[in-house]
Amino acid sequence: MQNRTYTAEAEPGDEVTVAGWVHEIRDLGGIAFLILRDATGKIQVKFEKDEMDEDLVETGLGVSRESVVSVSGAVEEEPRAPTGVEITPESLEVLAPADPELPLDPSGKVDAEISTRLDNRTLDLRKEEVQAIFEIRAEILRAVREYFREVDCTEITTPKIVATGTEGGTELFPITYFGQEAFMNQSPQLFKQLMVGSNLERVFEIGPIFRAEEHNTPRHLNEATMIDFESAFIDHHEAMDVCEGTLKAAYQAVAENCEAQLSLLGYDDFEPLDESFPRLTYEEAIERVNATGEVDEQLVWGDDLSTEAEKALGEDIGSHYFVTDWPSEIKPFYIQDHDDDPDLSKGFDLMHPRMELVSGGQREHRYENLVAGFEQQGLDPEQFDYYTKMFRYGMPPHAGWAYGVERVVMTMLGLENIREAVLFPRDRQRLSP
Amino acid sequence: MQNRTYTAEAEPGDEVTVAGWVHEIRDLGGIAFLILRDATGKIQVKFEKDEMDEDLVETGLGVSRESVVSVSGAVEEEPRAPTGVEITPESLEVLAPADPELPLDPSGKVDAEISTRLDNRTLDLRKEEVQAIFEIRAEILRAVREYFREVDCTEITTPKIVATGTEGGTELFPITYFGQEAFMNQSPQLFKQLMVGSNLERVFEIGPIFRAEEHNTPRHLNEATMIDFESAFIDHHEAMDVCEGTLKAAYQAVAENCEAQLSLLGYDDFEPLDESFPRLTYEEAIERVNATGEVDEQLVWGDDLSTEAEKALGEDIGSHYFVTDWPSEIKPFYIQDHDDDPDLSKGFDLMHPRMELVSGGQREHRYENLVAGFEQQGLDPEQFDYYTKMFRYGMPPHAGWAYGVERVVMTMLGLENIREAVLFPRDRQRLSP
Repeated sequence: MQNRTYTAEAEPGDEVTVAGWVHEIRDLGGIAFLILRDATGKIQVKFEKDEMDEDLVETGLGVSRESVVSVSGAVEEEPRAPTGVEITPESLEVLAPADPELPLDPSGKVDAEISTRLDNRTLDLRKEEVQAIFEIRAEILRAVREYFREVDCTEITTPKIVATGTEGGTELFPITYFGQEAFMNQSPQLFKQLMVGSNLERVFEIGPIFRAEEHNTPRHLNEATMIDFESAFIDHHEAMDVCEGTLKAAYQAVAENCEAQLSLLGYDDFEPLDESFPRLTYEEAIERVNATGEVDEQLVWGDDLSTEAEKALGEDIGSHYFVTDWPSEIKPFYIQDHDDDPDLSKGFDLMHPRMELVSGGQREHRYENLVAGFEQQGLDPEQFDYYTKMFRYGMPPHAGWAYGVERVVMTMLGLENIREAVLFPRDRQRLSP
Repeated sequence: MQNRTYTAEAEPGDEVTVAGWVHEIRDLGGIAFLILRDATGKIQVKFEKDEMDEDLVETGLGVSRESVVSVSGAVEEEPRAPTGVEITPESLEVLAPADPELPLDPSGKVDAEISTRLDNRTLDLRKEEVQAIFEIRAEILRAVREYFREVDCTEITTPKIVATGTEGGTELFPITYFGQEAFMNQSPQLFKQLMVGSNLERVFEIGPIFRAEEHNTPRHLNEATMIDFESAFIDHHEAMDVCEGTLKAAYQAVAENCEAQLSLLGYDDFEPLDESFPRLTYEEAIERVNATGEVDEQLVWGDDLSTEAEKALGEDIGSHYFVTDWPSEIKPFYIQDHDDDPDLSKGFDLMHPRMELVSGGQREHRYENLVAGFEQQGLDPEQFDYYTKMFRYGMPPHAGWAYGVERVVMTMLGLENIREAVLFPRDRQRLSP
């Protein structure tokens, strides 16, 4: 529709054609209103029954809610209309009638279970507050990519069909690949590392990852969108700087460019992340958790942070924070240990007060140490030969991290369930749509 | 390395630390040079043997090619050096030694088969002309996304694990998903259509697609990166406008921002796409193919364009061009037919003179026609209920298209094999790295 005008751009005095969904019809007797909704908002269409063509009135007021119509006519100021303007229609065309029985009410007046919403995502996304979540998600991705380019990263795409998983055989979905066994990749980890050994040096990727985790919780997904970063010639401290930079860029961009969306979601006072993220060592973190008195069992060195511990620490700190220098044995083989204390790794996590967001660290770039690390974790280095052998030809020191965009959306917007941050989530029960 | 300087930024008079790979060592007797390479270029490091610390000379000149080193010292002008400057080292550290035997020569002096190159992508990407391809690819993605945002598109991510394929059971990789049969998605087609029926209206996605095609040719991949566009309230003509716009934006951005990379690849006269792409109907296209006299067998109405026909037409036209109004029976069920001639569809292809790039069209948005289309193509509409049922609740007229970024890179840069445009290609024989 070459000449279609968005409702938000219809100005008094214009002759326009608008098109969208029938949000509501209010019939007051001699006068009636059709509220038409499109991606940009809503506009009132006025029907003065006695003064207008009978067929036009009949079609316009007889159409069912959520049908798609286009309306042509003059835009006039009307202070009593919801947006201050209204259209007096000269013509109206029904482009796609809707069944009067809808499986979900897009006006949001009737609450729906998350499961019904996900089964009917098309209708669910006609609610402007749901639309707002996904517009904010898109803005986060845009801002993060822009930040990556500012710090000299090249965008890469690594394969999603792989012969071996990043961390061995667990949590992988098997594929039949022309008669061979293969898997859907659980992380670009090994591939992005191979690229920092090339002239690209510093790379990012935003793409899907697949984890056959049995969890079915409000914060886990079996398919997620991962933001991955990896760079040669930096250590874990500099990797944390870049990580903090991307998140701050995302919050800043959302604050600047998504005011309307934030307002719909109840954030009239959304604040960018101005403060530096505190960086605690793992040792400091467990001491601080124990000092809160909020955990049933005191943590001892070597324990992972439980959900309960994360919650206690998050409430105590009240902002994003890093935890560094984790025990080596709870970090994967590709994380480098401190040379002067092999029990201590150069891995880090970035935590939001509600949950873990990021895993990262300085990587082991020395061939012998890397192969020894595989063996320590019970993995067969031969299976990863395509990866390890490149470490024999000049692999620079490097560091990186990854976070799922869904958890960023979820924590930024205070969503209860991570499924609200994904158009078509995949979990143990849900494979369709 | 907080204070590392890229070689391209080392200016005479600076004291710098540079880090990278040992590209070459030239020993002339009393004087010797180490050429150090990083992501931005190369720099000469000078060793005057009699005037410098013996250990420093021994380490610097004893290191094997492709080892990773960092060098600190003063930058001086030196007209005879390849970049006009050189470093006199005060210290040199070997960060990662390389085996003297390399499986691939990153200097490019020794040719390698594509298969050896792909087995050793890390080393292959130390050639600056290979690096250039992937920097251009990243710039194409950046420019296309920017264009999409300029025309009001929202970025979406649709699932890659699905219960049914877009076009039925063929060419799908099966997955075991928690004991259920599932597939890797061959296209976001159905999901992006579901989104144009929501308030998002106009969407794009750049992500992986998976096709279990048996082809093993220089232009087919089993995993590719697809650029998908779909919009409500437009027809196929407007979809072609957006398609042409994205490609022109990509060429323009590469012309403006990748001069050095183009030059490395031999394109000193790279031209953006300024002319409008001709739009031929299918009927005009087959007539024109037949008139070239370059095809063994004359085409008749209903034939698909063979590789031979595409080649003849491409040479005749000599630029990108669209072919519109294809026979309905060779287009998929979701493409709308002309109401006044159901044998003729509103599908289109965008062709580069060398090959097909894009498939697109006006979609069928009317529920009854859509379900009839499924049946005509021998598909069971019940299996696609999650998709078809949304067409009963107000699905606007819409159109869209998709193209693989690899084919754009391949045709833009005149690459012989599509595998040169993918970091880690997947084909019938290749599953690793």
